[in-house]
Amino acid sequence: KLPLALIAGPCQLESLDHARMMAEKIAEACAPTDTKFVFKASYDKANRSSITTQRGLGMDEGLTILSKIREEFGVPVLTDVHDAAQCAPAGEAVDVLQIPAFLCRQTDLLLAAGQTGCAINVKKGQFLAPWDMGNVADKIASTGNERIMLCDRGTSFGYNTLVTDFRGLPTMGKTGYPVVFDATHSVQQPGGQGTTSGGQREFAPVLARAAVAVGVSMLFIETHEDPDNAPSDGPNMIPIEQMEALITQLRTYDALTKDQFGLM
Amino acid sequence: KLPLALIAGPCQLESLDHARMMAEKIAEACAPTDTKFVFKASYDKANRSSITTQRGLGMDEGLTILSKIREEFGVPVLTDVHDAAQCAPAGEAVDVLQIPAFLCRQTDLLLAAGQTGCAINVKKGQFLAPWDMGNVADKIASTGNERIMLCDRGTSFGYNTLVTDFRGLPTMGKTGYPVVFDATHSVQQPGGQGTTSGGQREFAPVLARAAVAVGVSMLFIETHEDPDNAPSDGPNMIPIEQMEALITQLRTYDALTKDQFGLM
Amino acid sequence: KLPLALIAGPCQLESLDHARMMAEKIAEACAPTDTKFVFKASYDKANRSSITTQRGLGMDEGLTILSKIREEFGVPVLTDVHDAAQCAPAGEAVDVLQIPAFLCRQTDLLLAAGQTGCAINVKKGQFLAPWDMGNVADKIASTGNERIMLCDRGTSFGYNTLVTDFRGLPTMGKTGYPVVFDATHSVQQPGGQGTTSGGQREFAPVLARAAVAVGVSMLFIETHEDPDNAPSDGPNMIPIEQMEALITQLRTYDALTKDQFGLM
Amino acid sequence: KLPLALIAGPCQLESLDHARMMAEKIAEACAPTDTKFVFKASYDKANRSSITTQRGLGMDEGLTILSKIREEFGVPVLTDVHDAAQCAPAGEAVDVLQIPAFLCRQTDLLLAAGQTGCAINVKKGQFLAPWDMGNVADKIASTGNERIMLCDRGTSFGYNTLVTDFRGLPTMGKTGYPVVFDATHSVQQPGGQGTTSGGQREFAPVLARAAVAVGVSMLFIETHEDPDNAPSDGPNMIPIEQMEALITQLRTYDALTKDQFGLM
Repeated sequence: KLPLALIAGPCQLESLDHARMMAEKIAEACAPTDTKFVFKASYDKANRSSITTQRGLGMDEGLTILSKIREEFGVPVLTDVHDAAQCAPAGEAVDVLQIPAFLCRQTDLLLAAGQTGCAINVKKGQFLAPWDMGNVADKIASTGNERIMLCDRGTSFGYNTLVTDFRGLPTMGKTGYPVVFDATHSVQQPGGQGTTSGGQREFAPVLARAAVAVGVSMLFIETHEDPDNAPSDGPNMIPIEQMEALITQLRTYDALTKDQFGLM
Repeated sequence: KLPLALIAGPCQLESLDHARMMAEKIAEACAPTDTKFVFKASYDKANRSSITTQRGLGMDEGLTILSKIREEFGVPVLTDVHDAAQCAPAGEAVDVLQIPAFLCRQTDLLLAAGQTGCAINVKKGQFLAPWDMGNVADKIASTGNERIMLCDRGTSFGYNTLVTDFRGLPTMGKTGYPVVFDATHSVQQPGGQGTTSGGQREFAPVLARAAVAVGVSMLFIETHEDPDNAPSDGPNMIPIEQMEALITQLRTYDALTKDQFGLM
Repeated sequence: KLPLALIAGPCQLESLDHARMMAEKIAEACAPTDTKFVFKASYDKANRSSITTQRGLGMDEGLTILSKIREEFGVPVLTDVHDAAQCAPAGEAVDVLQIPAFLCRQTDLLLAAGQTGCAINVKKGQFLAPWDMGNVADKIASTGNERIMLCDRGTSFGYNTLVTDFRGLPTMGKTGYPVVFDATHSVQQPGGQGTTSGGQREFAPVLARAAVAVGVSMLFIETHEDPDNAPSDGPNMIPIEQMEALITQLRTYDALTKDQFGLM
Repeated sequence: KLPLALIAGPCQLESLDHARMMAEKIAEACAPTDTKFVFKASYDKANRSSITTQRGLGMDEGLTILSKIREEFGVPVLTDVHDAAQCAPAGEAVDVLQIPAFLCRQTDLLLAAGQTGCAINVKKGQFLAPWDMGNVADKIASTGNERIMLCDRGTSFGYNTLVTDFRGLPTMGKTGYPVVFDATHSVQQPGGQGTTSGGQREFAPVLARAAVAVGVSMLFIETHEDPDNAPSDGPNMIPIEQMEALITQLRTYDALTKDQFGLM
């Protein structure tokens, strides 16, 4: 029954200085409640809506930055991988490898990620039922690596819209693996702005509160100092200056939930 | 910022004695936390899956029982109405008239209900977006009656399945009317058992917790002393002996939410 | 294996003259292919999105007009009923009573409609699985009236959107009752324009073609001489001047389907 | 306005002899109507529901077999690729590279596939709106390769269920690229059998007929001599002995559609 922890960071790596600034501000937001966090950032947005949008710094520069953040801030770092070949090098630089939702059934990627020995955060595909995540976890566990986290980031609901089914959190919890709720991608509107995805940032804290009341191990929240001008996922990221208040509030719900239930 | 109140009772009226027993047990479950409740029961299940299942006691006997419960227990009572002609007589016997989800766009029913001056609890249709409930409320308000509550009981998600979109609660709250979350119908599986609906009773407390964390005025919960043998909605009703613990728990989340937000 | 027939007319009755003009134009559109049609119009739009929109002429005037159309044109006429009390009088004036989709599980309405002895066209609720229409038909058949038609007009798919699942047509056909496809409501966008529903008129012929290829007994198509200025359902009605070409085309697909299969 | 062509074959390559037998039987089924076909088979099922199920022969053996089929039967061959590195070698052996639905937004894969100069059949993700396939096609076209086909294989509709929205075919057709309808995966029930996917084989011909009436360039149909014992996708494959009748029937609808419209 560990208290709620956080996976937080900007959607994509922008520069070493930006990553440092974000890590520092997240650390400050977490400090008053002594909330543990994993620093998250992507070196490559490999499946953006359109070819015309920014993909990021690339693996080499990205992993270097993440290693530095890990070292300088003493926090675990997480990044997402997009094919099997990326797992070994990424696994050297980070503590947690993340499997993107669209790729959650790609067997080779899951196996290669598992073989690194890193913790693996797998996002539930928008097309997948929560009870089908057991098969996904089994693929990773077949490598002998059971450091698995299962993450909900919303389910397809008509076109350009996701819905969060909160029955999914305890359903995924039945696997015995920790459950993560991704509060910012769950309010994404995929493809909703033509060549980029839209989002409903105002609902991220609402859904986060619901998830913590239901009971989760960790929350995944993307944050930025200026979401409206961020290179990706701006419409759904939380402004960094709101993070301390949000975390503090969510910890009070978490204390209540963890006190009453042993959930996840 | 009133504390969380409850709409609770059996799905359908079975007899005066049964209604008394249920009202007494609900009162006992609410007493330790001084939770206000409205006693709910239906005199007619007017839209059951199949013609072969029990519809209930009928309007005359049903309204008589509800009047007695109101008098004997000193609690407000609620029942659902199915066509415009039922509103006036039902409105004499009860404090709150409820508009079933399937009927939430039937203009004559909404107007007739509004004209009684009773409080009106309108369930959002499973086919309706939460933002479209403003038009529904406007129909009632056009009668001069603004004692309106908007209630979420789930949204169609594929076949024989509902999902609760918790963004819907604050969305409906923007109308200014109190928002109710129906925790037991939200876990119904409509038509899921051939000639009756199925349900996932185990998720009702989970979703109730999420709703209270998001922020609602009232919860709607159907309860029974023996759900598995109840004449309707057994698969999703909460056993009455679990109600005290559930209410007590939900009130702690509600205190947190009402303390932090002035939500709904 | 009767050839494809049509249920066609304006969404709502506007005046006797308008009904006459529409009936005449539909008759002309059907004549070259000798296509049988039922004239359809509503005397009351009882569940419009908003209280501010037009409801129609009312039952008395509406039924009088429909009777006249029946007499003058020698065609069967259809109208929709909204509560049990309307069934007997409406049943006197028309040949087919239609149960609106939102009301497809209202037992009293189904029974009262059945008891008139009229043919009954029941629309599948947007919230209902096609295999659950068997229970709906059984309610009507319990009155001894088996003149039942089951009609698909789309299924909820996210918010403000319907989707047609063409597996539903043969699934409903397994009941043994004739199956109708409603091509114009299936492209409705419920509530999609704030206080009225939107629609995608351009897809109605596309889905009609698909339905006829799958195999149906009848198509339901709303049509108007000036859809953009019609009092309701304008965004999804077919302009009357396009009907002849559409019917002619659909009959060629129907001939193929009826020739190869004995479907519905 | 070319007549309907086919992409057909077993879900996975089983052996050279099996591929030969299937190619021969498909050729026989197509001969009476002179229907062109592309032979389809996978060398690797890279995203199966569970780790315990069969993945296939692997790329080397698979590509060798496909090359032989192409040479011996004089037909174009198609296979699916799962990461960017597979595109160049696979592109040497086959005529058409296929992008799996889950991977339809993976930019590197789309670019690598495009760069081979092969024709590319991209399946629309189950999570993607049809109008968002324009962005997908643009990624491929950015390589200078415009030999693109857009394929619908169903859209997420609740859990473990897909629905085909036939408005999607003309919507994708607006891009100007040929549209393919995948009749057998559209009736898949993803994850519906625990560790494998279920399917509703009986609806594949129904949906194929609808698609051809709407208007498509090609149909994608998986077929097998003994679907119930096939290593994958058995529940939705069409038995090979039914293919001739099915193709013959579909060509009559196609003739009608191509005669009337210039669709796709």
